[in-house]
Amino acid sequence: MVMINSAQEFPGFPTPLQPMNQSSKSDIETIMRELGKKARAASTSLAVASSDQKRTAIISAATAIDENAKHITEQNDLDVAAAHERKLSSAMIDRLKLDEARVAGIANALREIAKLDDPVGSIIAQWERPNGLDIQRVRTPLGVIGVIYESRPNVTADAGALCLMAGNAVILRGGSDSIHSSTAILQCLKQGLEAANLPEDSIQLVPVTDRAAVGEMLRGLDGNVDVIVPRGGKSLVARVQSDCRVPVFAHLEGICHVFVDASADVSMAVEVVHNAKMRRTGICGAAETLLIHQDIVDSHLKPILDRLSEAGCTIHGDESICKAWPAAEPASQEDWSTEYLDAILSVKVVADIDEAVAHVQQYSSGHTEAIISEDAESVAAFFNRIDSAILLHNASTQFADGGEFGMGAEIGIATGKMHARGPVGVEQLTSFNYRVRGAGQVRP
Amino acid sequence: MVMINSAQEFPGFPTPLQPMNQSSKSDIETIMRELGKKARAASTSLAVASSDQKRTAIISAATAIDENAKHITEQNDLDVAAAHERKLSSAMIDRLKLDEARVAGIANALREIAKLDDPVGSIIAQWERPNGLDIQRVRTPLGVIGVIYESRPNVTADAGALCLMAGNAVILRGGSDSIHSSTAILQCLKQGLEAANLPEDSIQLVPVTDRAAVGEMLRGLDGNVDVIVPRGGKSLVARVQSDCRVPVFAHLEGICHVFVDASADVSMAVEVVHNAKMRRTGICGAAETLLIHQDIVDSHLKPILDRLSEAGCTIHGDESICKAWPAAEPASQEDWSTEYLDAILSVKVVADIDEAVAHVQQYSSGHTEAIISEDAESVAAFFNRIDSAILLHNASTQFADGGEFGMGAEIGIATGKMHARGPVGVEQLTSFNYRVRGAGQVRP
Repeated sequence: MVMINSAQEFPGFPTPLQPMNQSSKSDIETIMRELGKKARAASTSLAVASSDQKRTAIISAATAIDENAKHITEQNDLDVAAAHERKLSSAMIDRLKLDEARVAGIANALREIAKLDDPVGSIIAQWERPNGLDIQRVRTPLGVIGVIYESRPNVTADAGALCLMAGNAVILRGGSDSIHSSTAILQCLKQGLEAANLPEDSIQLVPVTDRAAVGEMLRGLDGNVDVIVPRGGKSLVARVQSDCRVPVFAHLEGICHVFVDASADVSMAVEVVHNAKMRRTGICGAAETLLIHQDIVDSHLKPILDRLSEAGCTIHGDESICKAWPAAEPASQEDWSTEYLDAILSVKVVADIDEAVAHVQQYSSGHTEAIISEDAESVAAFFNRIDSAILLHNASTQFADGGEFGMGAEIGIATGKMHARGPVGVEQLTSFNYRVRGAGQVRP
Repeated sequence: MVMINSAQEFPGFPTPLQPMNQSSKSDIETIMRELGKKARAASTSLAVASSDQKRTAIISAATAIDENAKHITEQNDLDVAAAHERKLSSAMIDRLKLDEARVAGIANALREIAKLDDPVGSIIAQWERPNGLDIQRVRTPLGVIGVIYESRPNVTADAGALCLMAGNAVILRGGSDSIHSSTAILQCLKQGLEAANLPEDSIQLVPVTDRAAVGEMLRGLDGNVDVIVPRGGKSLVARVQSDCRVPVFAHLEGICHVFVDASADVSMAVEVVHNAKMRRTGICGAAETLLIHQDIVDSHLKPILDRLSEAGCTIHGDESICKAWPAAEPASQEDWSTEYLDAILSVKVVADIDEAVAHVQQYSSGHTEAIISEDAESVAAFFNRIDSAILLHNASTQFADGGEFGMGAEIGIATGKMHARGPVGVEQLTSFNYRVRGAGQVRP
């Protein structure tokens, strides 16, 4: 395995130390359209690549990452130094930072992706018609995926490998903050592609840091991008959803609800609500609002809120909550539509399942909701009447995750109702077509 | 059943004799946004409507259509008279025209839709996780479908009922040419909804004929349209695809290919090519280009082209074809990307399967392609390397149809790779969500 010493070894790839911010609009358009064309060409080869080839590429990339760990962390140091200079927040710098353990984690994540079942070519459905025609619905790659992300350099590897496993070419547009780290990781992915004899354009990183490049991707690069996946904060996702002319797999936010029904087991409610809110507060599947049935305020509310409070959670309650549990701060109207991503929970008393459903229908972001209940009828109403991507009964909202679903690595969670919904894993990055076998049938 | 005598019996519904062409832009925006809101509200009820309710609505609508056949044909006479005045082509007038038999056909088509399996609530997949979580992927309605069509009044009934069966509200925007006919049919659909106690806004017809109404639909009515289905000619579909800000299920055109491989059985090739081109020349699944392997030009070409020619088909051939079959007219470059929808076929000799695949990849519209071959390797190459919605082996391209696939009525054929592809039937008009059942599981 060749060790990579500097980005300059890749001819034609812009030196990351000189981001092309000075490029003119039309230069960027030309560069981006060229990336699109190359991705489309690569996707044609990828569509017929064998599972072995794709796995070889991904495993070889993991090896290259291990072998080039020192180079990657050195390049990452440059990004981190620049981030300090630009006075980025410590949270952002932490997301950006790669140490040896994190680099090893990136390599291992690739090895996990290489173990996934290859969806391409799998038969989703098959049936025979009375005239003898045999019809198969077969998974096919989507084509070209555009991934737009922020500072986490691991996305370069994860997203690149996941798209590749599904037979798609990918155009990665990372944040300028992580350009050195991402470039170093990309070089390892390219080594993997080369080892598997797959087109090097299967995984491309946008070489310009100018924001106009994102605009070009959102316009679809002359039809050479089939879907865009934004990975990042709300403002990034909102821009992509508003401006994108191609389909988007995304969720804008996760305003996830837990409804504790009248029939709920109190200790289960305490544990599930605590986990849904506090296990990790910064993820999209974290609960942001608790709805509690009025009949169990006396019995269930105190243990639930005490447990949260002991764990450091602030409660924003409606009037009834503030009365029943005086440590609560009064909730404003805005609380019901706020994704805190922090140790804060809005809490409201509802009269019945109908009011709970109505509240969720009004304020949910369509991501994940849970009901804690021992009453089958309430659960059925909750499941049938709420149209969020993921509905849970007697389980924590923090299970909203491709890995937890047994679907393997995910490129994100989608709240749209078209094509992919919920965790977007390797299978959701495919399309399908129909393959019909006959013996000379003609249509009467 | 109440007989309907005039559109005026429906208060609030504009008299079709005075289309609101004079409406101002902002009036139309207000009207359309209101339709969107009402559709969204109706969709919430429809999502939990029982199969019986939906079937009752559709069967009752069919009965109303039968009982109001005279009213419908009278209203249709007004449309036809206006079409003559506007000197529409006889083909367009034929598409518009309803006689008693056609009205009975519309009613019967509804009864067929009512027999379809209700997709909503069906479990697509189910699995259990090691921690005991039971995960189901369950079909749910998409929400609100917008259908934009031209002069065929039967689309009002077909599209309305198909969307309803999948639990979706629908906003129908028919052509101004058929406004009287469509309004009369809509009244019958509304009777069906009433009989089943479903919201009358489940099926709405855009009451303004101004083209600006289409523009509003394409902008998505404040997020109250989830998908648009255009039904009509290329210019309508092209406008929708270019301007639409919500997902579209459509095909722009059907440039369908038949490749006769070296190993093809000659009599099968003759029959399948003839059927693929000539059974009906005006449908999207009709073949437009024939590719023939060079090794069998001497043996297969003449019988294939003679049979087509006898049936009235004109041949536009490449140089080799014109030499081998002198009645052919020389094909121009344009022929390879032309959807004739007529008794014309472009024909080209190819050196091998690679050239056949390359030609299809370059010129196909991604709809339907067929290979006639007795060689498994060629078939595999054709199936794996061509990414059209429908691929057929030894069968006519004219089987590209939801009914022929056993999927029942279809709202159209989609060539996009997202969500629905190929025939778009009741199942493709749904989304899905995840329903997870636990026993108090929390995430470690």
